[in-house]
Amino acid sequence: MRKEGAMVRWVRWAAAVAAVFLVGFVIGESPRVDVVLMGWFARPTSSPAQDEGTSSRYLRTLLDEMKPDNIRAHLRKFTRLPHLAGTKQNLVYAEQIKEEWLSFGLDSVEMVPYDVLLSYPNKSQPNYISIVDQLGNEVFNTSLAEPVPQGYEGVADIVPPYSAFSPKGQPEGELVYVNYGRTEDFFQLERQMGINVTGKIVIVRYGKVFRGNKVKNAMLAGAKGIIMFSDPADYTAVGVQPYPDGWNLPGGGAQRGNVLNLNGAGDPLTPGYPAKEYTYRSNPEDGVGLPKIPVHPIGYHDAMHLLRNMGGMIPPNNWKGALNVSYRIGPGFTDTFKTQKVRMNIHTNNQVTRIYNVIGRIRGAQEPDRYVILGGHRDAWVFGGIDPMSGAAVTHETTRSAGKLLSNGWRPRRTIIFASWDAEEFGLLGSTEWAEDNAKLLQERAVAYINADSAIEGMYTLRVDCTPSLHTLVYDLTKQIASPEEGEAGVSLYDSWHRRDNWTSDRDAPRISKLGSGSDFEAYFIRLGIAAGRARYTKNRKTERYSSYPVYHTVYETFEVVDKFYDPTFRRLQAVAQVRGGLVFKLADSQLLPLDANEYAGSLRKYALSIAQLAQTHLEEMKLYGVTFDALSSAVENFTVAARDFHVRLQTLDRADSLQVRMVNDQLMYLERAFIDPLGLPARPFYRHLIFAPSSHNKYAGESFPGIYDALFDIENSANQQQAWQEVKRQISIAAFTVHAAAMTLTQPA
Amino acid sequence: MRKEGAMVRWVRWAAAVAAVFLVGFVIGESPRVDVVLMGWFARPTSSPAQDEGTSSRYLRTLLDEMKPDNIRAHLRKFTRLPHLAGTKQNLVYAEQIKEEWLSFGLDSVEMVPYDVLLSYPNKSQPNYISIVDQLGNEVFNTSLAEPVPQGYEGVADIVPPYSAFSPKGQPEGELVYVNYGRTEDFFQLERQMGINVTGKIVIVRYGKVFRGNKVKNAMLAGAKGIIMFSDPADYTAVGVQPYPDGWNLPGGGAQRGNVLNLNGAGDPLTPGYPAKEYTYRSNPEDGVGLPKIPVHPIGYHDAMHLLRNMGGMIPPNNWKGALNVSYRIGPGFTDTFKTQKVRMNIHTNNQVTRIYNVIGRIRGAQEPDRYVILGGHRDAWVFGGIDPMSGAAVTHETTRSAGKLLSNGWRPRRTIIFASWDAEEFGLLGSTEWAEDNAKLLQERAVAYINADSAIEGMYTLRVDCTPSLHTLVYDLTKQIASPEEGEAGVSLYDSWHRRDNWTSDRDAPRISKLGSGSDFEAYFIRLGIAAGRARYTKNRKTERYSSYPVYHTVYETFEVVDKFYDPTFRRLQAVAQVRGGLVFKLADSQLLPLDANEYAGSLRKYALSIAQLAQTHLEEMKLYGVTFDALSSAVENFTVAARDFHVRLQTLDRADSLQVRMVNDQLMYLERAFIDPLGLPARPFYRHLIFAPSSHNKYAGESFPGIYDALFDIENSANQQQAWQEVKRQISIAAFTVHAAAMTLTQPA
Repeated sequence: MRKEGAMVRWVRWAAAVAAVFLVGFVIGESPRVDVVLMGWFARPTSSPAQDEGTSSRYLRTLLDEMKPDNIRAHLRKFTRLPHLAGTKQNLVYAEQIKEEWLSFGLDSVEMVPYDVLLSYPNKSQPNYISIVDQLGNEVFNTSLAEPVPQGYEGVADIVPPYSAFSPKGQPEGELVYVNYGRTEDFFQLERQMGINVTGKIVIVRYGKVFRGNKVKNAMLAGAKGIIMFSDPADYTAVGVQPYPDGWNLPGGGAQRGNVLNLNGAGDPLTPGYPAKEYTYRSNPEDGVGLPKIPVHPIGYHDAMHLLRNMGGMIPPNNWKGALNVSYRIGPGFTDTFKTQKVRMNIHTNNQVTRIYNVIGRIRGAQEPDRYVILGGHRDAWVFGGIDPMSGAAVTHETTRSAGKLLSNGWRPRRTIIFASWDAEEFGLLGSTEWAEDNAKLLQERAVAYINADSAIEGMYTLRVDCTPSLHTLVYDLTKQIASPEEGEAGVSLYDSWHRRDNWTSDRDAPRISKLGSGSDFEAYFIRLGIAAGRARYTKNRKTERYSSYPVYHTVYETFEVVDKFYDPTFRRLQAVAQVRGGLVFKLADSQLLPLDANEYAGSLRKYALSIAQLAQTHLEEMKLYGVTFDALSSAVENFTVAARDFHVRLQTLDRADSLQVRMVNDQLMYLERAFIDPLGLPARPFYRHLIFAPSSHNKYAGESFPGIYDALFDIENSANQQQAWQEVKRQISIAAFTVHAAAMTLTQPA
Repeated sequence: MRKEGAMVRWVRWAAAVAAVFLVGFVIGESPRVDVVLMGWFARPTSSPAQDEGTSSRYLRTLLDEMKPDNIRAHLRKFTRLPHLAGTKQNLVYAEQIKEEWLSFGLDSVEMVPYDVLLSYPNKSQPNYISIVDQLGNEVFNTSLAEPVPQGYEGVADIVPPYSAFSPKGQPEGELVYVNYGRTEDFFQLERQMGINVTGKIVIVRYGKVFRGNKVKNAMLAGAKGIIMFSDPADYTAVGVQPYPDGWNLPGGGAQRGNVLNLNGAGDPLTPGYPAKEYTYRSNPEDGVGLPKIPVHPIGYHDAMHLLRNMGGMIPPNNWKGALNVSYRIGPGFTDTFKTQKVRMNIHTNNQVTRIYNVIGRIRGAQEPDRYVILGGHRDAWVFGGIDPMSGAAVTHETTRSAGKLLSNGWRPRRTIIFASWDAEEFGLLGSTEWAEDNAKLLQERAVAYINADSAIEGMYTLRVDCTPSLHTLVYDLTKQIASPEEGEAGVSLYDSWHRRDNWTSDRDAPRISKLGSGSDFEAYFIRLGIAAGRARYTKNRKTERYSSYPVYHTVYETFEVVDKFYDPTFRRLQAVAQVRGGLVFKLADSQLLPLDANEYAGSLRKYALSIAQLAQTHLEEMKLYGVTFDALSSAVENFTVAARDFHVRLQTLDRADSLQVRMVNDQLMYLERAFIDPLGLPARPFYRHLIFAPSSHNKYAGESFPGIYDALFDIENSANQQQAWQEVKRQISIAAFTVHAAAMTLTQPA
């Protein structure tokens, strides 16, 4: 101690001498000067000016490193065999991904298992649907499997089309056709057509809303079973051949998919907690979101047989698909076939099964406790040519390229986490369990989540759904990426996208949409309030009216459907890789987080206007019950001012002061968190984001101010108008408070 | 830019020259060296070595600044008039506090109003209880008010004893005496004595558990009214005179208090959200925790009249108080008085009323976005001589002294928030609404909450209830404070306290207890997971068996009861001021947060052992239903290792690197947050702390692992043992997961 004291005194003296030299230059100068000195004498806290140049160069290197041929090779490699969640093959791919990520140079890669409820057909008792005559003889049976595409004939373990989590059962009864099975379709059926489906089997076409919503509607209406079919009107593009000659759905193809109503709960038996070995599991009959009536999907060839003899009313035109039948409503068959009934034969089993996430990490250099996540699923219904391996191949290439940068001396400011999720197809299970497992860390440390599901669903242009605070970054970044389209050499992705999908009525920029649900960002964004976004290549929304893409969730989602039709040069997937990877890079490596509170303010203003307009259809009742949007408007106004002031203050931030930089970054990071209500939306405790959540009537559609939206929706539906309007008022009040609270997080901390 | 470039080069050169001098000394030396240099050349990011010396000196100054005479003067000033929440006088005191805090030099002080549900007696229709004869004539009425103490005879607005939030009503019926009205008392009454209270009026003595729990038990048992009385056995000390000759409760005194079962909800009409002007309010009949049967408190003189003629069984001895009656159970009166009934006359009104918190701030110098809160209530049932003004006077002196330090050049590293809460007596309303209003900011930024309710409840020694991570700080600090006891000159508060209340079986140190509820820390600790503690002077727990202190919540809580009996020198209150103020100082000003994860580990281990032992009384059922505590033990083990490693790493932390310091401080700050389950405890959404929460059977008592505790408690009570044990398993699993998750927050961030 004595010795050190002397030395410290000596250092002090030497420093004083140096100070005499420097002081004239230091005083009043820019922070850079300090920084240079700190670089010499002290440990490197930060060096913003230098960092930003270097960081930009590394971004360019990353973008250029990602190659179409590599993406093609990754996709080829991971689509040879079916790899359904919970199967051996999906574990094999997980292990392969782990090994390759390690070889790419990530700091660590681990397998993280959970034991979740999955659902498989019974191999010895296949699922099918029959038409039975009055003696009970099966006079027609739907097919037990899809015709296997060429080149895959010998492949084992192709799971036949089924509705995951359907209960077992053999209900028999008359069919009723209910269009898409939406809430409004059932309303129309019951109120306008006067048809009650209690004890009937409903048949609905796929499309427009999430299939789980259709099943829930059928249950609530009293049906004892539900059949879903793919209508050519919804699953074929004009002028396109069925697979393998084109990318349309063949008549023998049928869409697999889970039919849960989880509302973000994850594993149905362990809502709110990770499904670990020691975790308490509820009884299967108490599982969250499990349907109570048998469900089965069929293709349009089989649908023809069920529909063609139906009796009853002829429906309105918007209930008619493109099959050569009259789409009569039923109940039951027409005269000649009146004695025939429909019987569902469902033997699917629920089963607690081990799944595996693969989690890779690049440790952040300056802020290891700040996380940017790039996550997408690995499990596929069959080969997963598009869903999800087009996305997984893109992530693989991003991971490889990031590893390359590491070996060139780069290390991001913040930690990057790469995730290969399991069991997305069974209800976003892998990603949700991991979010539950790491909720505390994520809540406190996660900067952003970029989703990496299917990277392509069309051949037209870019599609981005993200939180408003990412808008500016998406625009900036896409200006640095080349258009992948032929004949657009020298055109940026931004310009190519802008030209094809302008935001017209709102602003002159490429359209960016709200996040809904239906993929793995859900727990991160809607439950935890982490800024999130997704990007993929898409179809032309204005001219291509089919739902998702025709071969979605069929055996025809092969490597070839991408290689031959969707992206033969793999440049579209490259562009998606550059967008996703670029977002991750910028979020992880920018000294100041590239999040824009002003964009959030603008979006809130738009949403508040729009929800108020929606309510205007009930002007009289609003007056009667004293409903106004004033509190919400004033909160949005408040937020707008706070956001503007925040960004003005940022301009004079001393970026050499690492503590000050951390403080404003914390404000930016926690902005999304401010919209989380720990109490959740009504009856949906795991949907906690008050600005964005799926509609209660369609999981795929993101609604803004979903609490108010659902309350207004229920007005139509409620016997007690007084009470229904009180709920609207309550939801407006909660939204207004939350926006006010979010505004507070942007003001100066004390 | 060119010019600056040249200058930067020059500086670089000069720095290099200096470096040549220094490099030999710098390499391999302690961080201090860097720090000294940074202190000279760069902006002051931090200077730990220097800071800590300076900070310690300022702490000493703060402790020495707080004076007994000042505390006496503050107490005198704020106890002259009744200042019930929602009254004019309580606003006058609020404004006075605001002005004085501003004059002390705080950076800002604001009044923050909320409109919450309060409850007042009807001035024109007093509440009382009658004995009525068979004709309905009132043959005895309880007193309408307490005899006013000398010196306060002319004072207006002394609210008579009442049970706040009692519904109106005039129930009439037979009395049943149920001891303390605890869950176990009602069990004993129903199961062992075979008495059903449906349609009866129950009479219970005050004490042992929170009065709201008694009321809830009476409601659940079917009673139509409940009377609570103060028995001398529970509210008098041996050898002490009744007030004003001593500090015992006089026979005419009765304990006011609210009878809600809020479970942390705050304002009953706006659970989860701040009660602002625009906030949606539920209908009064849907308010949270409002009792459904009339309730009224009486003193022991009045109780004699109700009890003395009661008939029925003679109860066991532990049901007998110290009145000269037989404490018969009833129902109803004995032979001669059989035709008499009891009638309650309750006319109390619930009323939405404006309340005012006063919020003062000292902005933090380095980390303005980190908050340390010192909060206590201002509202009193009458004068508040002890509750709460002994605490408010202490806070006032702390605030004054902190202002003094500011004027001497001190500014704390972090922001300090001083709060004078309103309407604590009506369910912790002011503090809870403010917590709801600021939940996002607090969740992300609050380091600790120190509570400042009554500073004295006895004359024996210090009492501290706090989260385990504060243990070490409390011990360190009390060693720097002098004992206030006569004849203990030169003895530290720590030693004085240790001598009087050793933790014996667990460790040789002064006892520190768990936090329960019943004061304003509740929303901060149990809902939000902010490290919290409270300190006061207390009685001798081993020899003084009365509940709280005898004159609690009566008109006899005057300035004089403190000045004459509890603390004539005001040195005990000074010591409490030094503990509370010192805690706030250290939490706000230490570079490294003085929180100890190892202490948390040790406590968790103790609690896990203790809850497992509690379950051992059901060994057979545990085997039958497969209940084990293995997962919890292993989680605690895990936490213990993580805590130990964390503190080992702290020893080599580079304290000159402000970002690294911030990162470990974030881990320490968020440790308490890690124990919060957003889903809350079963049926108590606002009690979210899985390690500490009040028992469901007594709000005052903090239980460790309250979820498991309540599930075990319910075993006795449940018709379905299978189901009850499943709930125990579920709670063990949730607790184990939460402790595991908390351990993860202490590991290295990436």
